[in-house]
Amino acid sequence: MSLAMSTDIRPFEEIRMLFARLPAPDQAAVAAVRARDAQLTKPPGALGRLEEIVEWLAAWQGAPAPAIARPLVAVYAGNHGVAAQGVSAFPASVTAQMVQNFTSGGAAINQICKAHDIGLKVYELALERPTFDFTQGPAMDEREAAATFAYGFEAIEGGIDLLAPGEMGIGNTTSAAAIYAALFGGPASRWTGRGTGVDDAGLARKNAAIDAALALHARHLSDPLEIMRRLGGREIAAMMGAITAARLNRVPVVLDGFVVCAAAALLHAIAPDAIGHCIAGHVSAEGAHAEVLATLGKKPLLDLGMRLGEGSGAGLAIALIKTALACHRDMATFESAGVSGKSA
Amino acid sequence: MSLAMSTDIRPFEEIRMLFARLPAPDQAAVAAVRARDAQLTKPPGALGRLEEIVEWLAAWQGAPAPAIARPLVAVYAGNHGVAAQGVSAFPASVTAQMVQNFTSGGAAINQICKAHDIGLKVYELALERPTFDFTQGPAMDEREAAATFAYGFEAIEGGIDLLAPGEMGIGNTTSAAAIYAALFGGPASRWTGRGTGVDDAGLARKNAAIDAALALHARHLSDPLEIMRRLGGREIAAMMGAITAARLNRVPVVLDGFVVCAAAALLHAIAPDAIGHCIAGHVSAEGAHAEVLATLGKKPLLDLGMRLGEGSGAGLAIALIKTALACHRDMATFESAGVSGKSA
Repeated sequence: MSLAMSTDIRPFEEIRMLFARLPAPDQAAVAAVRARDAQLTKPPGALGRLEEIVEWLAAWQGAPAPAIARPLVAVYAGNHGVAAQGVSAFPASVTAQMVQNFTSGGAAINQICKAHDIGLKVYELALERPTFDFTQGPAMDEREAAATFAYGFEAIEGGIDLLAPGEMGIGNTTSAAAIYAALFGGPASRWTGRGTGVDDAGLARKNAAIDAALALHARHLSDPLEIMRRLGGREIAAMMGAITAARLNRVPVVLDGFVVCAAAALLHAIAPDAIGHCIAGHVSAEGAHAEVLATLGKKPLLDLGMRLGEGSGAGLAIALIKTALACHRDMATFESAGVSGKSA
Repeated sequence: MSLAMSTDIRPFEEIRMLFARLPAPDQAAVAAVRARDAQLTKPPGALGRLEEIVEWLAAWQGAPAPAIARPLVAVYAGNHGVAAQGVSAFPASVTAQMVQNFTSGGAAINQICKAHDIGLKVYELALERPTFDFTQGPAMDEREAAATFAYGFEAIEGGIDLLAPGEMGIGNTTSAAAIYAALFGGPASRWTGRGTGVDDAGLARKNAAIDAALALHARHLSDPLEIMRRLGGREIAAMMGAITAARLNRVPVVLDGFVVCAAAALLHAIAPDAIGHCIAGHVSAEGAHAEVLATLGKKPLLDLGMRLGEGSGAGLAIALIKTALACHRDMATFESAGVSGKSA
């Protein structure tokens, strides 16, 4: 898939056109899953959301017998100009150091992917060149934002069948909270949390930076793509592209936490159906993530007080999703196992 | 471990003596886990309950570097005289048919154990001879109840390091609800659910059977072991023994749903500390399981609307527990990965 950057059309217009041709859920595949489910050796409905998960996979893969042979966690790393405002407990250099840690297998997401046979790719997004400090002006220009969105398409190039976007970027919970405030209403403090662990003074700086940005960009926040380029970061732009490319290629998406859902919320603001293929892997302990999920109409699979990012909550959810599929695929039927059905 | 059945002492007295020598949590092991956790490449606390899980494993295994090399789901199957009261949607013959299904690998718990490399053992408890219908008299005599409790000790014989008891038994949600009503107060309808899916008339029969049993046994319900033998079933007695043997041998336990927690609630009534080594794997959609967990002071790891039994919710939770341990064991430290700590 390519997003050609012609000179005579604005890049955001090309992105907007993508949402006119989103594939619909495959209801015949869902019906096939339900018919098999009714024959499996368990009371109807007894596997709860595990049954719903298989229907979701079938709907969006467009397959009566859905499969997860090549799941992928795609971690996008970006640096943020707003980090200069002292909004994080860690220095900005940690973004690149953690990318190195992903590469050498030492991060939490490495262990999660290894434990559950999930592919892991890490995309560095010009870490040496942070986005512009959004308290002073737009984080990105339109061309860069659109190109980064398009770069997100690469996530699906390997022929994957399930995608969990993840992220790393010192300062990016500030960016995500700014996006939520712009989309759903402020003030900043309604949406912020302590991120990697800022103290009270750092949290005050974080809220002040967001409120200043909301004031600065106030006249441009009715368009989700403008919010993305002004208040977002490269990882958020790339994740929007990855989620959209997944939809266009019938790859279901597992959402991770506070920052990933900022990308999902922007897509939802463009077209609510644009995240129909997304399931919420978990609810994060960061900021107002629970409220964000409720607003997006997503009920999380896990609630474990995690707030790490990296795709860690989504990666754990993939372990459940794979197990749900294994039950559906491999359980015996009442007939094959010689088990009596319900009494008349 | 043996529970000698001498003739000159009542068997329940021998069981009661077990609770005088329960091992305590190993606080030094917990401190060692916390010290390592603080060095791992993530913000403090960012893995939420995954961090708490590793501390729990360390506390009860008594190991600063806990391990899960041989986890086991032990499924206990029993038949219940009260099934004759029409309390289930399925005929009692399904218990034996499902044991066959476990043996041939066709049940949900088989797929869950296979997916996450968990051992699975199935214990048939005299299926051809159901317990006595507890609406007419005690389900078991004291000797049989104690012997079945002791039989539960076998679960730990193979040198396991994590145990999840599971169960199968047509009629056993009726038995579990009766136990909760006896322990925590009635009427039956406060505790019952639809089990494998009884209709309204079946649910009315279920409530009537329990209320009749509570009246019949009313004078004997102050002693948890008497509740166990009068209203319980063999699988509940055996699971009580398995959970106790696990504690005595420093094997942490993952609780499954509505019926398993009846065994845990009886132990808790004998001595609240007797289930200190137990974590709640999930909250079931059956009956008042959420209220039971709150009463026992257990916060579930999963909430997926499951109500299957077989140890299925606990088995899924073991997938999370193993992953939590993998993160703790294999993540890089700030020092080894060259990642900067928090800003001063």
